[in-house]
Amino acid sequence: MSLSRRSKVDPFIVMDVMEAAARAEAEGRHIIHMEVGQPGTPAPAGARAALTKAMADDALGYTVALGLPALRQKIASLYGERYGVDLSPDRVIVTAGSSGAFLLSFTALFDAGERVALGAPGYPSYRQILGALSLQAVDIPTRLEDRFQPVPETLPDDIQGLIVASPANPTGTMLDKPALSSLIRAASERGAAFVSDEIYHGLEYGRRAVSALQITDDVHVINSFSKYYSMTGWRVGWMVVPESHVRTVERLAQNMFICAPHASQVAALAAMECKDELDANVQVYRRNRDLMLEGLKEAGFDRIAPPDGAFYIYADVSALTDDSHRFAADILEKAGVAVTPGLDFDKGRGAGTLRFSYARSTADIEEGLDRLRKFMISRGFVE
Amino acid sequence: MSLSRRSKVDPFIVMDVMEAAARAEAEGRHIIHMEVGQPGTPAPAGARAALTKAMADDALGYTVALGLPALRQKIASLYGERYGVDLSPDRVIVTAGSSGAFLLSFTALFDAGERVALGAPGYPSYRQILGALSLQAVDIPTRLEDRFQPVPETLPDDIQGLIVASPANPTGTMLDKPALSSLIRAASERGAAFVSDEIYHGLEYGRRAVSALQITDDVHVINSFSKYYSMTGWRVGWMVVPESHVRTVERLAQNMFICAPHASQVAALAAMECKDELDANVQVYRRNRDLMLEGLKEAGFDRIAPPDGAFYIYADVSALTDDSHRFAADILEKAGVAVTPGLDFDKGRGAGTLRFSYARSTADIEEGLDRLRKFMISRGFVE
Repeated sequence: MSLSRRSKVDPFIVMDVMEAAARAEAEGRHIIHMEVGQPGTPAPAGARAALTKAMADDALGYTVALGLPALRQKIASLYGERYGVDLSPDRVIVTAGSSGAFLLSFTALFDAGERVALGAPGYPSYRQILGALSLQAVDIPTRLEDRFQPVPETLPDDIQGLIVASPANPTGTMLDKPALSSLIRAASERGAAFVSDEIYHGLEYGRRAVSALQITDDVHVINSFSKYYSMTGWRVGWMVVPESHVRTVERLAQNMFICAPHASQVAALAAMECKDELDANVQVYRRNRDLMLEGLKEAGFDRIAPPDGAFYIYADVSALTDDSHRFAADILEKAGVAVTPGLDFDKGRGAGTLRFSYARSTADIEEGLDRLRKFMISRGFVE
Repeated sequence: MSLSRRSKVDPFIVMDVMEAAARAEAEGRHIIHMEVGQPGTPAPAGARAALTKAMADDALGYTVALGLPALRQKIASLYGERYGVDLSPDRVIVTAGSSGAFLLSFTALFDAGERVALGAPGYPSYRQILGALSLQAVDIPTRLEDRFQPVPETLPDDIQGLIVASPANPTGTMLDKPALSSLIRAASERGAAFVSDEIYHGLEYGRRAVSALQITDDVHVINSFSKYYSMTGWRVGWMVVPESHVRTVERLAQNMFICAPHASQVAALAAMECKDELDANVQVYRRNRDLMLEGLKEAGFDRIAPPDGAFYIYADVSALTDDSHRFAADILEKAGVAVTPGLDFDKGRGAGTLRFSYARSTADIEEGLDRLRKFMISRGFVE
């Protein structure tokens, strides 16, 4: 049996870093993890308690494909509270993480061979999922001056879709309402579907993130319990689609997933009531971000766009190296700090960039920054 | 935004039955559920206890894409115990249910436009997942005399894949080792990949089910914790692939799923130690099956292939109706028993078939059979 052409997805370069970090730890070294894109905190206590109770009371069989009605209702009401958008729960579909939502969205919107544009740098799995579905990813180069977000002028004409993330991974930068509106308009002018990745909403450090639903109903909005709700491993997220798409996405979900994990849905519903614990997590990220902005600069990483949200900082290190993969390996070996080479996010210019995550504890951030500064001094990059 | 062509999947007709049953129950009627393909029992007590403990001790973040190493090891050892097959855990990939495994397998094996054969009747989602991935499902008609399983002579030449299930849904029939071997050989002669759906293994009432891994390593074997382990809603399953496919499927899984739900993996690992509870469930199914074989015959449903496994019986009712959808609706309305019209499993001859599930309690089965017999008497089909 031979493998298909579309199964040839690119490797994650960060996996090399993670494996090297694991080997170093196995040898007894202490490594600071700035490569990992997930909170160190567990799901909120209330979420875990709710699941323990449900496991005693309920068989937790399949849910309907669209998700637990109470969870869909609660998610819909979030759009009223956060964005002032009146959203019908009928348009909310609970998914197996944002990964499941992307699979459903891309299948619902695009046929084999179609072209879908995305900003570079960007979340690498967009491109790989598109490829697995026999779709063609079209890179839109972005600029530091535009805070690494696409602008309408750079959008190709012959595309069937556009994916935009705000806050973005790997940069943490956001689009304000005019910028997001102009991209939605530019996609519409090209007859392209618009997919808005909003999985880092709730993790914001200044102004609030804008949802595409504040601008139009004619989009697919994708969100997740992984980041703000600190539930990465639970694989539960959601999408909001136009009323006219619900029945189609429902049928796809029935067949491709049956349902999102029932236990995770129960936990997610309860997590939405745990505002205090979640806000405390955000305060840690906020403090970490401030430390990072100051500490990275002191360490000589000064070509960055300050992040509005998420828990990443993307640094242009092209003045220091033309091989970010090797540079990250050096930082790991010499400084004991794991960071992600930019090549995972941008095949082109990523050879000159690094992503630093600040999702872990503040003590780790302080120690990591200290190590990075010493490393950069030892290399003669700072005094 | 318009929907893609490949998103136009067929509706599940059983959903109409389930909705009508739910309406009847809302009106105060008591309905016996023989339509649902899932156990009424929860995950084993040991599985739930293990998760409660893990939620206290562990953040339950992402696992590696291939799954928890201990779970892969335990699954590999199952092949030694059950089938006498020495299997490396490296070849085991934990997935988001068998649904996740099918998505990964079909993506890894087939490119857009390729043709994949499957027996009719069969599990409807195969066809829909293939369509969603821009693949073409090719029906192989089967015969009651062959116990509704495909035979090599009926296999088309120009196919790139073949999916076989044993025990099968909707029939519960199994392939013995010679029959399975001949299908694997027939696929190989056509250059077609072979996918073996083994999700009902462990639910057998006479001889043991044969795994394709007893015959060759050059297959994709798909299994699940949903049925034997009574964990439908947990969305955790696994696949076994040739050594040379592991790295590719791993990369696809990293991008398409990140990982199977961590909590479900923890529960699944513990479920594998709960043999007594699981065997007790099988004894209930065995008793239900015996009651069904006798009771359906008494009720005039006598054109059936006795099931070797799973918890379904498929009946040819073409002498009684040429509209199984309407017939099922009548049975629900008049007898208060929900059953699945065969059209979901076989677009052609399914107009003359029904599927009965016996996964629920024995008391329900007895009551359901009594109602079915009275209904058939009232219709003059039996005396």
